[in-house]
Amino acid sequence: MTTIEFEVVPTVESRQRTPGLVVMKFGGTSVGDTDKLKRVAERLVAAREAGTKVVAVLSAMGKTTDELIRLAHEVSPSPHPREYDLLVSTGERISNALCAMAIHDLGHEAVSFTGSQAGIVTDGSHTKAKIVEVRAQRIHDALQEDKIVLVAGFQGVSSATHDVTTLGRGGSDTTAVAIAAALGADACEIFTDVPGVFTADPRIVPEALKLDAVTYEEMLEMSASGAKVMALRSIEVARSYGVKLRVRSTFEAGEGTWIGEEDDVVLEKAIISGVTHDTSEAKVSIIGVPDRPGIAAQVFRALAGAGVNIDMIVQNVSRDGAATISFTLPKTDLPAADPVLDALASELGAAGVERDPDIAKISLIGAGMKSHPGVAADMFDALAEAGINIEVISTSSIRVSCVVRASDVERAVQAVHARFQSFAEERVNG
Amino acid sequence: MTTIEFEVVPTVESRQRTPGLVVMKFGGTSVGDTDKLKRVAERLVAAREAGTKVVAVLSAMGKTTDELIRLAHEVSPSPHPREYDLLVSTGERISNALCAMAIHDLGHEAVSFTGSQAGIVTDGSHTKAKIVEVRAQRIHDALQEDKIVLVAGFQGVSSATHDVTTLGRGGSDTTAVAIAAALGADACEIFTDVPGVFTADPRIVPEALKLDAVTYEEMLEMSASGAKVMALRSIEVARSYGVKLRVRSTFEAGEGTWIGEEDDVVLEKAIISGVTHDTSEAKVSIIGVPDRPGIAAQVFRALAGAGVNIDMIVQNVSRDGAATISFTLPKTDLPAADPVLDALASELGAAGVERDPDIAKISLIGAGMKSHPGVAADMFDALAEAGINIEVISTSSIRVSCVVRASDVERAVQAVHARFQSFAEERVNG
Repeated sequence: MTTIEFEVVPTVESRQRTPGLVVMKFGGTSVGDTDKLKRVAERLVAAREAGTKVVAVLSAMGKTTDELIRLAHEVSPSPHPREYDLLVSTGERISNALCAMAIHDLGHEAVSFTGSQAGIVTDGSHTKAKIVEVRAQRIHDALQEDKIVLVAGFQGVSSATHDVTTLGRGGSDTTAVAIAAALGADACEIFTDVPGVFTADPRIVPEALKLDAVTYEEMLEMSASGAKVMALRSIEVARSYGVKLRVRSTFEAGEGTWIGEEDDVVLEKAIISGVTHDTSEAKVSIIGVPDRPGIAAQVFRALAGAGVNIDMIVQNVSRDGAATISFTLPKTDLPAADPVLDALASELGAAGVERDPDIAKISLIGAGMKSHPGVAADMFDALAEAGINIEVISTSSIRVSCVVRASDVERAVQAVHARFQSFAEERVNG
Repeated sequence: MTTIEFEVVPTVESRQRTPGLVVMKFGGTSVGDTDKLKRVAERLVAAREAGTKVVAVLSAMGKTTDELIRLAHEVSPSPHPREYDLLVSTGERISNALCAMAIHDLGHEAVSFTGSQAGIVTDGSHTKAKIVEVRAQRIHDALQEDKIVLVAGFQGVSSATHDVTTLGRGGSDTTAVAIAAALGADACEIFTDVPGVFTADPRIVPEALKLDAVTYEEMLEMSASGAKVMALRSIEVARSYGVKLRVRSTFEAGEGTWIGEEDDVVLEKAIISGVTHDTSEAKVSIIGVPDRPGIAAQVFRALAGAGVNIDMIVQNVSRDGAATISFTLPKTDLPAADPVLDALASELGAAGVERDPDIAKISLIGAGMKSHPGVAADMFDALAEAGINIEVISTSSIRVSCVVRASDVERAVQAVHARFQSFAEERVNG
């Protein structure tokens, strides 16, 4: 079960196209120090001089946000959310203002906007706000004045209280995509420390290939199953608004990977887009639960009430009529889940609750899977040949995921990638 | 010549009194780390629990602003002023948000506002903006909701462009006084690392006494002549609006020093409020200038045009009809003054220009001086007895200043303070 986080989609005052506009997003490692910031400034100026209209969205520099969070926890065990947002939003203001200075020194006009100044209007959910509207007039005007526009990512302003809000993890990606949607940009480019999207993590699979293009759906499944290249909800927003995405390297040349509609990215021969893995989850099993209707609903409603994000769910019934419900969840959600699980076990008269943090999830993703039966069986077969036991299986129309022991994850990714290597080569080489 | 920097005074939407309200300002050393921030939070909560309505204005933590300025100069030799202000204003947002979190943990409601949210409206002069209006409605509403209000000092929002501005050196003092004026506070308390205003720097004169009260005029002269306890322009604003000031220690108990009108602070027996010194200035002499009308105007108009702040000016005419014009200026203004001085010397046919950075200015200040002739003579006498040569003299109705060698400054302060010790004791002890 892939959970796609929906957000109230940005309404746009005047949906217009801005031909020649590219929104460029740079993550924290791309702006890790002032030298790197200057190189980003040079990149933006080069794009402007080549005729592109440029809006850049920069994350905070390197560890700035972590440092601000550390300060917050030094003064308070549970920082007040409104103040927390005002605090951590300063990181992006710093990096964007510095980059604007560097652009001025290169002889171009630039202006950096806070989220509020850029018109990123959100709901009032501090630390995890959703964009409800993009009022891009000020950006539009600055572009008309031939300026390079910088926008502090990850933040907005609450429509109700006018307080500063932050968008939660991956928020800068969402800022960039929302602005690209509002202004009708030609593309939204996500600059990062890898040259694009790969068929598997190259640190584990040296043979992994960079993909020229993937569909929104594939990228959503890849991000949801462990690929870290883009934040899930930003891909969702891009798909909703038809914003063409491109993932590329900050400091290397290269075409990167395009992400768009299936029609746009020409995937006729494409079956498999990649193998992903995720070691951030734990598995929980509630054992010996009565097999009667409503139990699963009771379990997952209680966990949702505690704010726990559930990923894969499997329920088996044994011959004696008792069921085992297993599911995965982020390890970081275990502390919130624990008291709920104990209470549930007692209410349901379960035999026990097992918590297992030593798991990994590997997933095979490909839009072509829909029309190619047998892909899942090939994956299970590859794992079996490698002597790797599958503990939980979950599938969607374009993804197969398996839970294995954490200690098996590298061999599992290698085995599955090797089995589908020929498909990957076919896709990349046409 | 004491230059008092004027600012467009804050107009206030509804001049009202807020009985029981105290605005408390804490400088950078008072909030130097998270432990100190928590102690400030405790102090604010204690005041609230004692029945005071509290608005606090915090500076940035310790070296935060210096660090931000360092980053700016790493990316740009001359940072763009608009971006510079957006950058350096983040320091105060961080400290105030953190303090609000700490107050929440102490069981009180608190809210931190940026300069813009607090209604500090300025002109558009980036890095040295002047407050033109304080729209304190949001602070007023938060106080009505029984919240402790924190305001990021040193910053505002430009009325024309809605960009973030900063108020220049001592800006947090000005923020605090402007808010106290706008809301009609009972007092504005300046918390610092000393227990109050002293009759001389206690590091130089161990016998120096803490003053219970000084007048606005005395405090203006003391600040203008080297006392660092408060920023000059904030005292000017306080005087304009009749805001009672109090300088006190952040981490020690004590009544501190009140600053107000002569009537309020009861100074019948007061002659001398203190001896100050300043080693931040240099002396320049233009030698052998023709003694004819208009020369001085020409000299100082040219220097003003280069943005150079002139302090004391003395002109002597020798028997051969040539004049020497001497003046003091901040050492930091010498680079800007140098080319102007060389050009002037050439235009005027002067014999030469001497630049002397090794000077100090010592000043004796007291509102009672007006009605006690002979104070200046006593001061010169004390310096002569100590064998210290006076190079330049300048006076106002409540101040006498002398330029001496920098190497003589400590002995000069001690000698003058000793001569007026009995007056100081009389003032403090009644």
